[in-house]
Amino acid sequence: MTNQTQTIFTFGNKLAEGNASMKELLGGKGANLCEMNLIGIPVPPGFTITTDMCRLYHSSGENQVLEFMFNDLFKAMQFIEEQTGTKFGDATNPCLVSVRSGSRVSMPGMMDTVLNLGLNEKSVQGLIDKTGNARFAWDSYRRFIQMYAAVVMGVKAATDQDEDPFENIIQEAKKAKGIKQDNDFTAQDLKEITARFKEIVKKESGKDFPSDPWEQLGGAVIAVFNSWMNDRAVYYRELNHIPHHWGTAVTVQAMVFGNMGDHSATGVAFTRDAGTGENLFNGEYLINAQGEDVVAGIRTPRQITIEGSKRWAALCGVTEERRSEEFPSLEETMPDLFRQLAEAGAILESHFRDMQDIEFTIQEGKLWILQTRNGKRTGAAMVKMAVDMQQENLIGQQDAIMRIDPNRLDELLHPIFDPSAALKCRELGQGLPASPGAASGRMVFSAADAQNWTADGEQVILVRTETSPEDLKGMVVAEGILTARGGMTSHAAVVARGMGKCCVAGAEAVKIDYKTRTALFGGEILQEGDWISLDGSTGRIYKGKIKTTEAELSIDFDRLMLMADLHARMQVRTNADTPQDVQTAKRFGARGIGLCRTEHMFFEDGKITAMREMILAENEDGRRKALARLLPMQRRDFESIFSTMDGLPVTIRLLDPPLHEFVPHEDSSQKRLADQMGISQKTVREKIDSLHEFNPMLGHRGCRLGNTYPEITEMQTRAILEAALNLKKECIISRPEIMIPLTGTVEEMEFQKQIIEAAAQAVFDDYNDRIDYLVGTMIEVPRAALTADKIAESAEFFSFGTNDLTQMTYGYSRDDAGKFLPLYLEKGILKHDPFQILDQEGVGQLVNIAVKKGLSSRKNLKIGICGEHGGEPASVEFCHNAGLHYVSCSPYRVPIARLAAAQASIKQKRAETEMLEKLQI
Amino acid sequence: MTNQTQTIFTFGNKLAEGNASMKELLGGKGANLCEMNLIGIPVPPGFTITTDMCRLYHSSGENQVLEFMFNDLFKAMQFIEEQTGTKFGDATNPCLVSVRSGSRVSMPGMMDTVLNLGLNEKSVQGLIDKTGNARFAWDSYRRFIQMYAAVVMGVKAATDQDEDPFENIIQEAKKAKGIKQDNDFTAQDLKEITARFKEIVKKESGKDFPSDPWEQLGGAVIAVFNSWMNDRAVYYRELNHIPHHWGTAVTVQAMVFGNMGDHSATGVAFTRDAGTGENLFNGEYLINAQGEDVVAGIRTPRQITIEGSKRWAALCGVTEERRSEEFPSLEETMPDLFRQLAEAGAILESHFRDMQDIEFTIQEGKLWILQTRNGKRTGAAMVKMAVDMQQENLIGQQDAIMRIDPNRLDELLHPIFDPSAALKCRELGQGLPASPGAASGRMVFSAADAQNWTADGEQVILVRTETSPEDLKGMVVAEGILTARGGMTSHAAVVARGMGKCCVAGAEAVKIDYKTRTALFGGEILQEGDWISLDGSTGRIYKGKIKTTEAELSIDFDRLMLMADLHARMQVRTNADTPQDVQTAKRFGARGIGLCRTEHMFFEDGKITAMREMILAENEDGRRKALARLLPMQRRDFESIFSTMDGLPVTIRLLDPPLHEFVPHEDSSQKRLADQMGISQKTVREKIDSLHEFNPMLGHRGCRLGNTYPEITEMQTRAILEAALNLKKECIISRPEIMIPLTGTVEEMEFQKQIIEAAAQAVFDDYNDRIDYLVGTMIEVPRAALTADKIAESAEFFSFGTNDLTQMTYGYSRDDAGKFLPLYLEKGILKHDPFQILDQEGVGQLVNIAVKKGLSSRKNLKIGICGEHGGEPASVEFCHNAGLHYVSCSPYRVPIARLAAAQASIKQKRAETEMLEKLQI
Repeated sequence: MTNQTQTIFTFGNKLAEGNASMKELLGGKGANLCEMNLIGIPVPPGFTITTDMCRLYHSSGENQVLEFMFNDLFKAMQFIEEQTGTKFGDATNPCLVSVRSGSRVSMPGMMDTVLNLGLNEKSVQGLIDKTGNARFAWDSYRRFIQMYAAVVMGVKAATDQDEDPFENIIQEAKKAKGIKQDNDFTAQDLKEITARFKEIVKKESGKDFPSDPWEQLGGAVIAVFNSWMNDRAVYYRELNHIPHHWGTAVTVQAMVFGNMGDHSATGVAFTRDAGTGENLFNGEYLINAQGEDVVAGIRTPRQITIEGSKRWAALCGVTEERRSEEFPSLEETMPDLFRQLAEAGAILESHFRDMQDIEFTIQEGKLWILQTRNGKRTGAAMVKMAVDMQQENLIGQQDAIMRIDPNRLDELLHPIFDPSAALKCRELGQGLPASPGAASGRMVFSAADAQNWTADGEQVILVRTETSPEDLKGMVVAEGILTARGGMTSHAAVVARGMGKCCVAGAEAVKIDYKTRTALFGGEILQEGDWISLDGSTGRIYKGKIKTTEAELSIDFDRLMLMADLHARMQVRTNADTPQDVQTAKRFGARGIGLCRTEHMFFEDGKITAMREMILAENEDGRRKALARLLPMQRRDFESIFSTMDGLPVTIRLLDPPLHEFVPHEDSSQKRLADQMGISQKTVREKIDSLHEFNPMLGHRGCRLGNTYPEITEMQTRAILEAALNLKKECIISRPEIMIPLTGTVEEMEFQKQIIEAAAQAVFDDYNDRIDYLVGTMIEVPRAALTADKIAESAEFFSFGTNDLTQMTYGYSRDDAGKFLPLYLEKGILKHDPFQILDQEGVGQLVNIAVKKGLSSRKNLKIGICGEHGGEPASVEFCHNAGLHYVSCSPYRVPIARLAAAQASIKQKRAETEMLEKLQI
Repeated sequence: MTNQTQTIFTFGNKLAEGNASMKELLGGKGANLCEMNLIGIPVPPGFTITTDMCRLYHSSGENQVLEFMFNDLFKAMQFIEEQTGTKFGDATNPCLVSVRSGSRVSMPGMMDTVLNLGLNEKSVQGLIDKTGNARFAWDSYRRFIQMYAAVVMGVKAATDQDEDPFENIIQEAKKAKGIKQDNDFTAQDLKEITARFKEIVKKESGKDFPSDPWEQLGGAVIAVFNSWMNDRAVYYRELNHIPHHWGTAVTVQAMVFGNMGDHSATGVAFTRDAGTGENLFNGEYLINAQGEDVVAGIRTPRQITIEGSKRWAALCGVTEERRSEEFPSLEETMPDLFRQLAEAGAILESHFRDMQDIEFTIQEGKLWILQTRNGKRTGAAMVKMAVDMQQENLIGQQDAIMRIDPNRLDELLHPIFDPSAALKCRELGQGLPASPGAASGRMVFSAADAQNWTADGEQVILVRTETSPEDLKGMVVAEGILTARGGMTSHAAVVARGMGKCCVAGAEAVKIDYKTRTALFGGEILQEGDWISLDGSTGRIYKGKIKTTEAELSIDFDRLMLMADLHARMQVRTNADTPQDVQTAKRFGARGIGLCRTEHMFFEDGKITAMREMILAENEDGRRKALARLLPMQRRDFESIFSTMDGLPVTIRLLDPPLHEFVPHEDSSQKRLADQMGISQKTVREKIDSLHEFNPMLGHRGCRLGNTYPEITEMQTRAILEAALNLKKECIISRPEIMIPLTGTVEEMEFQKQIIEAAAQAVFDDYNDRIDYLVGTMIEVPRAALTADKIAESAEFFSFGTNDLTQMTYGYSRDDAGKFLPLYLEKGILKHDPFQILDQEGVGQLVNIAVKKGLSSRKNLKIGICGEHGGEPASVEFCHNAGLHYVSCSPYRVPIARLAAAQASIKQKRAETEMLEKLQI
């Protein structure tokens, strides 16, 4: 950084030194404020201190950074003064500013803000003179002191549970004056309260509250820088994979006031419905209030449109008469200003080509837009908006696809409450449908309790009067969130939608008593730990635990998926063993089965007995007898799966788990088995004991079974091909791909292949007919990846079993890693759980090696993945880049994988285009 | 192969079509016979059919190969007839030939031979007329029939246990005539026996014995080709890693007869002592005998030198008088011929620059050399000969080193009988010290029993009247071999020396009864299963099991090792945890400790209690208290090891195994522990149960312990560095290298390193002094190898833990692989046990990747191996080629590794030289 570095960028009056492309330097808020000026949106003048300065502060300290930008800061304040015709700290026409954070991506509520900065004993008089509203001026001053003292001077409640010292004073004053609402304080009351606030500050911090506006400004800027590193911001960034080195910008902007009387208001508007995605302008506002009154959910706000207002009234059971009187919309109270706001919204949405979340203030009849950003939304809204905007030609297909967070699709796919089950439950009340989904859990009343209970394996619903950023950790672990206060834009609602978590907000009938840990629902008192259920799509609250049912997929969802398939190179298959799973996956668009585990079939009904007899047989003869009984059962399973998939490829993995997983280990079951088999219990026990292994994960399993007991491979091959040939008679096409598990050497592969081919020939001779089939292998042992060129000489396809591959590459037993993995994640030794997100650095190297080597010896080798990573978006992208032909995942992850596959293709194409453009320069 | 291919090469009368360099085409025997002619050795004329013909036979069949070489074969027989002035099948001066196998490397006794070929009713008369010795002629004829019938026509004892049909006839004839020795048969007796032999052949094979000498020749050649694929030859090749496609040559050579009366003899000579390596010409002979009489051990042969004869007599307790009368040496009976033989031996040894094993025959006063080859020898002889020959300037240092089979050094290093323990045992008798070493085992009397008993985990001594190639599999599994008949060159003796296995041969006092499975030693009868002990260096046989003691190393051994160190690039360290191991390894020349496992130390005395208390502690405080008690004990261990290694580097691995390995699992021990700790048994049991893991190999162990319980790493670091600083006060230099086990990510490594560095700083502060130390890691998790560039940014050295690396790369648990590994080896799915011989294809790739990546980010990274492969010669060569700086192995493998390291260097230099020479052409 040199002295020539521009440290501050000003904006105002349709001019700006920055623009929307400068988010890295000016933060999202600063860049957008510049951009809004440039496109003619009415924005209070101000300036933005760059993120460079934040980094400089954290590396060099307060003095260094203030010195470095002092001149620029001075000039920028002059700019605001000129634009507004005010003077900083002036006794007649004082300049008041807000100081806000703003990083490259939005971190709502995580960092600090100071409003009304510039007020002191002198300028408060100026404000009174200028507005003729002493009550407003003193209220602004006391709010400023309260906020500044908390943010900059650290004077506030020590913890969540403690009482706020300033709130105590207000409560005492109310009691003394016999007042109920803040609004009822007189100017004199507020002046007294202000004086007492200053005493508290002096007492708690040992310092006088600063009266010099420059000192106030410096302190606030530094406090915002500091708030970048506060606990909840750090936690939020880690949760959202945001780098800590980005830093925050600081925007200083002329204050406008929504609390200057009945011609003033403040609110939040959304250009589309953040819950459903509908193309409906909507939002909330409060007359004679400051912005945080809306966001913090302290007063229940009103809707800005008539339609929104009517809907709200219907939900809350408010009559139209009462609505239009007590809760009129902005469209009704200030129709001109509403029209200006709606126009600004339309301009902003079409400019930023996305749904906008707009903060506005009306100061004595003039509209100011304070902030705009891409709005958070539910998964359903995300899909609908993307598809709608694509259809409106606002964005292209690729943009529509890229705009979807694949993980968020999960919300749309997962079960909702079974309506009939819900009907049978007692309804406790209703709130706003703040974030859709269905959740059951046991009530807890604090974030800490939510964490403790879930650590003990409980499902919880976090119930709060209102939530604040301090509740974040509790919200993350809760199944759902219920608040008694706040609207659709309250903290609880916004954060829950961002997390895709069910939330019912503003259920005003609920009374919470933190001390006794009880909640009163109408007449009924429930205790901490009682089960409740929330329906975030209707806002209804139920007593007890409710059964769930399948979600219905919207037409928009289908459109999105079809678009994704058009753009994806990789196909998506599913891992499914049962006809039900196969059905689900087909409904979600799976183009085949990538992993059908035969062992799960053996646990059904009669099969387990035959399986156990096979395992306990004395010799090959005995095994063959038991296998002969298993054959028709397996064949029927395959017939069912093949006919459901009807011509799509089905990859069947031969028997994989160690045999001791199939036998009973308790005395009584062993006795029963011995009786069934007509042998002594001692024999059964000895045989079972002999199956014990020290490390079963690395033991006698996978193709090691098929190689020691070739008759198992023979039977399974026969069941597969007989099923296919039986269906062929009914004109149903089967495309079996026989997959050998746990291959480590080409000899193992070849040995199994020969057994399969011999068995296949025998079946074809029996049927006097044949079908095509492939023989391939899992790549899940590191050695298989390393010698993939050899193995591909025998194998016709590869399927990466990244679960086992991860286990062996890391040397982690998934069953035992609980002893150290959580600690490793906590200490940062691991960035992610490698069983959830594919480790590209290590395991990924083996995948890349295997793909390259495999294709080097078999050009048309088919390559896929069937580990659980196949449904995780970052891993899907890796698979695309590694050149895989398909991914296979659990049925519910199929749509996620389809979208992730499309995004990977688009990303690659865009990177290639970018590269070409660079090369042409 | 074209019609121009030379199928046959002739030799005779100091001329030859081939030479010693043509072993691939003519086999070792054929090439050497050519070479011997060229250097003027008296060799009976003959010719060699190439190995090409053997391959042609096995690919195309008998007719094809005989047709292909018919003309050449005819001309070659004419050459023999011309050289010897005889005629094939002639009635007056018949030409008789031997037909022998001979592959590229010697496979003693594995393939078939036919002697006296060309005899029939007509030519036997010619032989009688020519030699005037009807008895000899008929004896030759009956031997020919017996051999030919067995080899070519398959008429022989069906199995080892059955009786030979021809031997039955001889025994019957002896009985009928009242004769004891074969020699006592008259010509007429033998003529009758011959007739009965032919009847047997007709009866058993359904065919007449062929009288046409050309038919005999064709049959014998094909039979030798066939014998290349017989079971024992195939087994021998697999044991010795000889490719099956090499094939055997066939040498046809004019017969000379050692059994033409008292001026004829036959024998075997060695240019040096095959047992001790002494530069002493020696050997055995029999007057009036054919070669196989000596080799088969049927008659006890005489020594060829006076000195040898006297030594033998002393060993066998034969008086000089009886010796010179009954067992005179060749030097005494035929001094001129002895001199010629000794001269021929000297020429051959200096020509082939190695100890020669020479077959000779004296036919009526003329010496013929039938065969020469590099002689088999004991490990001790191998060392002494190589060193002597290098000192005699017969060979260079590199040749001397390359001539040693590193695995054979094992014989010299392993314990011998404790003399005082042997003194207390009853001596059962004495035989010839045929192959040195000491062995105890339970007596078995057949190869099959030897295999069965050892399969059940027993140690056995194979006791046979004499051994034959059919006994090979039994000899491989036995601890030692005892025969009642045969000399130092008997089958048992030669094969045992080749295997480095203890053997006592020709213990004539021992009478074996195969039927009752007993052996009579003097007056004492021992049963199958009784323990006996053999001292192969003295020939003594003891009753019972004897304790062993350290072997003494010869000066020659030391010289060899010093030579090896001069040529090796890699250093050799040892894996040692106890002062005793460290001492042994130092004696064997270890240049440091490559792996000191700290966990073994914890199992001693008081330590295990403190260790258990540490494990069962409730919290960090409790653990620290127990660790504080362990600290001084560990420190003392390290002081002892550092002072023994005195300035050599010592790599100490931090705690590695899962904690449950240290705690008691039986009820009573748990109770005792609970009492000791003053807590309830239930608490102890619960804590121990909580340590259970499904796959401990992949569980909470290695650096995962040190990262979850940093206080353990801290204590161990403290113990290591305090020990070093204490010794520094006594002017003893320590070079500790602290090694972190089971690292998989650089973050794990870095986390541990920081703990170590902090602990080190604390120790240095306490002592107000410091020492240098390194911090590095095992590379034993595949991911560590794959991300070695990252890890080397933190680690100062790598040590490949190829045991674990093999487990994880293959996905084989060593503890469980017994369920499939033996079968995999048997079926050829695995060529070697990857835990014995490093898998270069798979695991080796990871080693190469890690070396390359590691050095890319740290130029001076120190790299070694401490898996058990570090002492296996093929793996040591791999490590050299991979660029490792050292190998570390168990103390007894240190000399083997030193030699293998030297050989690897030499091989590489030679390959480079060869490459350079090629490039200059």
